[in-house]
Amino acid sequence: MRATVLLAIIMAFPVFSFSQNSSESAKPDIEHVLHQQRDAWNHHDLEGFMAGYWNSPELTFSGSSGISRGWDGVLARYKKNYPDRAAMGELDFSGLEFRFLGADHALVLGRWHLKREKGEVGGVFSLVWQRFPEGWRIIHDHTSANEAPK
Amino acid sequence: MRATVLLAIIMAFPVFSFSQNSSESAKPDIEHVLHQQRDAWNHHDLEGFMAGYWNSPELTFSGSSGISRGWDGVLARYKKNYPDRAAMGELDFSGLEFRFLGADHALVLGRWHLKREKGEVGGVFSLVWQRFPEGWRIIHDHTSANEAPK
Repeated sequence: MRATVLLAIIMAFPVFSFSQNSSESAKPDIEHVLHQQRDAWNHHDLEGFMAGYWNSPELTFSGSSGISRGWDGVLARYKKNYPDRAAMGELDFSGLEFRFLGADHALVLGRWHLKREKGEVGGVFSLVWQRFPEGWRIIHDHTSANEAPK
Repeated sequence: MRATVLLAIIMAFPVFSFSQNSSESAKPDIEHVLHQQRDAWNHHDLEGFMAGYWNSPELTFSGSSGISRGWDGVLARYKKNYPDRAAMGELDFSGLEFRFLGADHALVLGRWHLKREKGEVGGVFSLVWQRFPEGWRIIHDHTSANEAPK
């Protein structure tokens, strides 16, 4: 048993170096997905925006209305809350902070802002990402709106 | 270069099995920390409650008031929002969902509820955990209150 653990620790070293190198390239990959999401939103393309999320029934989105589940459930939530172009407004992200959690997961904090005629809104988000063969995808999103919208 | 990648993949297998076994024991470890947090809160011991968080300037807490930073900053936020026993009420967690992100990180979703005379409140949280030599600690907390508190 102790030998197995020791073996695992010794064998982890090359894997660890490999992981660290992968994480370096992951930041621009994740930023690219976020930019694609922003552009899709600003073209009023919710399905395109959803391409940044893990296409799975296990996808989760937490917020002040509880937990939405699955890719379809999260899309339905967006459609309900942002029914038209006026509600969607113009999206921008700022203040992105990256924390890599091992080789295949990342936590990205940031701020979102919607420029709208009917009243601007914004807040903060916490995105948990996973690396899939097809690229990095959001597996969990927790988004809050500011207490006092400007 | 290809040989290094291949070597890393081959060597990852025993590490992967090791990680999976570690994750199995991690769930009760994390649950234990959460129970300790709940008990500390219900004894009006905010410092004890904070023992579940990573004691680091890099700890983050996101919510409708933005991002609080560092162990001291998160404690200050709790002290401001829950100044006395009446505000703190009686805390309970429910609906815990565990997702392990590699061997040393986990995402835990759940619901929080404060039973209070001045009005009950509750909502959802997303906790990102990391395994440290001293045990599992929360490295990021994103908490929301329900839109319409009961």
